[in-house]
Amino acid sequence: MDSFRAPFSASEYARRLEAARAAMALAGLDALVVTDPSNIAWLTGYDGWSFYTHQAVILDHAEDPIWWGRMQDTNGARRTVWMGADRILGYADHFVQSTTCHPMQELARHLVERGFATGRVGVEKENYYYSAKAHEVLGVSLPDARLADATALVNRCRAVKSDEELGLMRKAAAISDHVIRTAIEAAVPGLRKNALVAEIYSAMITGVGEDWGDYPAIVPMLPSGPDAAAPHLTWNGDRLKAGEGTFFEISGAYRRYHAPLCRTVFLGRPPQDMLDAHAALLEGLEAGLDVARAGNRACDIANALGRALEKAGIERSARCGYPIGLSYPPDWGERTISLRTSDDTILEPGMSFHFMPGLWVDDWGIETTESLVIREDGPPEVLGTVPRQLFVKD
Amino acid sequence: MDSFRAPFSASEYARRLEAARAAMALAGLDALVVTDPSNIAWLTGYDGWSFYTHQAVILDHAEDPIWWGRMQDTNGARRTVWMGADRILGYADHFVQSTTCHPMQELARHLVERGFATGRVGVEKENYYYSAKAHEVLGVSLPDARLADATALVNRCRAVKSDEELGLMRKAAAISDHVIRTAIEAAVPGLRKNALVAEIYSAMITGVGEDWGDYPAIVPMLPSGPDAAAPHLTWNGDRLKAGEGTFFEISGAYRRYHAPLCRTVFLGRPPQDMLDAHAALLEGLEAGLDVARAGNRACDIANALGRALEKAGIERSARCGYPIGLSYPPDWGERTISLRTSDDTILEPGMSFHFMPGLWVDDWGIETTESLVIREDGPPEVLGTVPRQLFVKD
Repeated sequence: MDSFRAPFSASEYARRLEAARAAMALAGLDALVVTDPSNIAWLTGYDGWSFYTHQAVILDHAEDPIWWGRMQDTNGARRTVWMGADRILGYADHFVQSTTCHPMQELARHLVERGFATGRVGVEKENYYYSAKAHEVLGVSLPDARLADATALVNRCRAVKSDEELGLMRKAAAISDHVIRTAIEAAVPGLRKNALVAEIYSAMITGVGEDWGDYPAIVPMLPSGPDAAAPHLTWNGDRLKAGEGTFFEISGAYRRYHAPLCRTVFLGRPPQDMLDAHAALLEGLEAGLDVARAGNRACDIANALGRALEKAGIERSARCGYPIGLSYPPDWGERTISLRTSDDTILEPGMSFHFMPGLWVDDWGIETTESLVIREDGPPEVLGTVPRQLFVKD
Repeated sequence: MDSFRAPFSASEYARRLEAARAAMALAGLDALVVTDPSNIAWLTGYDGWSFYTHQAVILDHAEDPIWWGRMQDTNGARRTVWMGADRILGYADHFVQSTTCHPMQELARHLVERGFATGRVGVEKENYYYSAKAHEVLGVSLPDARLADATALVNRCRAVKSDEELGLMRKAAAISDHVIRTAIEAAVPGLRKNALVAEIYSAMITGVGEDWGDYPAIVPMLPSGPDAAAPHLTWNGDRLKAGEGTFFEISGAYRRYHAPLCRTVFLGRPPQDMLDAHAALLEGLEAGLDVARAGNRACDIANALGRALEKAGIERSARCGYPIGLSYPPDWGERTISLRTSDDTILEPGMSFHFMPGLWVDDWGIETTESLVIREDGPPEVLGTVPRQLFVKD
């Protein structure tokens, strides 16, 4: 059974609870309803593909967290959370996707039983797994409680990684390296995109040595040629062509921890404008990495990148990165800090980012990126080891 | 470019618009804001892994739908939707995961510009991609509009599949068959679970002949032994053991269409209670399939299954199936009809279901399931061709 349990120490979970409770206290919350699967896993260890039905963790200031979800998933909770079986609650199956009742009625009942009927209860209003309807039903079912927006309260606690977490991220990064090397090696004119994705998945899930690969929160993306101007197209059965570039946007995952990595391969001779843009991109990456230091701000990275790109006449408006770590679909970012000119968050040792300055122009796209960890001193730890270059297979 | 476009005729999209508009008229809606990625794809053809940022389709009674999303994803929209470029709207990147502004402010502006400031506007309140916050911001930004709950309005239009859709589902089913056969063949004692998943992904994405495999909306699940009591655990690096059963819960996907299929393999000699339960399960499956006919009700299938299981002394409370077709993570069901005793929806020709009577007991689990299509007359078309049995490898 224990092979499913997340490999963290009791003190690591204690640290997390303490951080979340401190943030709750600052926000004046008596209880917190956590619905983000990444936050649920971070607090309790829970792991399972059950987030398509309503589930939550109830956190208060005194007792162990409560895992709450569909009855059939309590078996998975018993195998993955660190709390005792008495802290696992299931709701009956007739609540699932019903039009006449809603699981949040059950959650409200548990909150009332635990003394929060008139409490100030935090909810994650901006989350894939907390729908407008869930909020409405919870509000109606707790007429005397005050529901407060606690979006990203736990996510922000996750920003600085512990050594235990960094250990898992380094394993994820080794898998990312393996996947990118496999993809660059396999890419030849005539190969179908889906056949290439099959090789990518095989490397990603096989993992590296004993370190088995988990599923990443986003599927591999690898658009080619003019389609690489569209960053989020997934693959099809088209064939790779000579004279086209393809970027690989992937992440290895180890025990739900991610370390994304992107590289671009060109089959043939890249056009001069792409070579020039990539040179500027590398300069911007180096400049951004150099200021990714404790005490600097998130925007310093974006500004350093921006200056290098501007010098080359490249305008780029999208953010150039986001925090990474534990995640579930549909996003491997933490949805807190953004590496952009308007974000002045101070960088702290242990924060981890995907520095992701993709360039998508009208008729091609390139992505060369790094996952990094802010150090106590000096420039960041770069998690990947794949050379930072445009890979040309002529 | 056109290789990314969904392979549907203009008349198929016209049929879909007509159905959605008829449902809107019944609900008294002037406009509909569609945020479910499956509904967006069904109406417009849009396909991309961009649903982790806010996006929507605006549908009214007169004009072509409008695709609205993040600016960098308009390039993907141009490649995948059937509407003209003038029906594609992007919002600036600073709205993405911002704490000071929200994309729904932009959507509200577009709705006002199109004359819906005082209209009755449908929203999908119970959806992963319509958060409590999104609803709040849209409401505040449209103070004179009436936001009405239109959850599952489009999903219900999707219940009866066209011949064009069934063509894609049959291709997905052929991929499911290929994956299940690959998994059963590969499963041997000592094999690591993740190595087996690597083979599963490889088969799933390689596809069958020209028909390339898309990513399924749920990752493969294959719990073993006592862990198979927990239906939604994902894999780890443990080794398959002699004397244990493993079920495979997978779906091939073709152009986002699914046809899930589950089979169970036992390495060694299954215990008598598992054999008995599986015999009852098969009887229940046959009985359920026999009543899966146009004019009967969803609950008739659940009742037929229930009678066979009860006869064998098996109590099973979870629903035993759901509609399937086009889907995006985190769920491959359509979230409308449920095959359970309380659902009296009349079955219609062209409806498609995953008839999914998994059994999860204390120390093992078995899943033998079928995807089916209701016919005009007689029993349903069963999409899979893998023998309906417990696979024993002694």
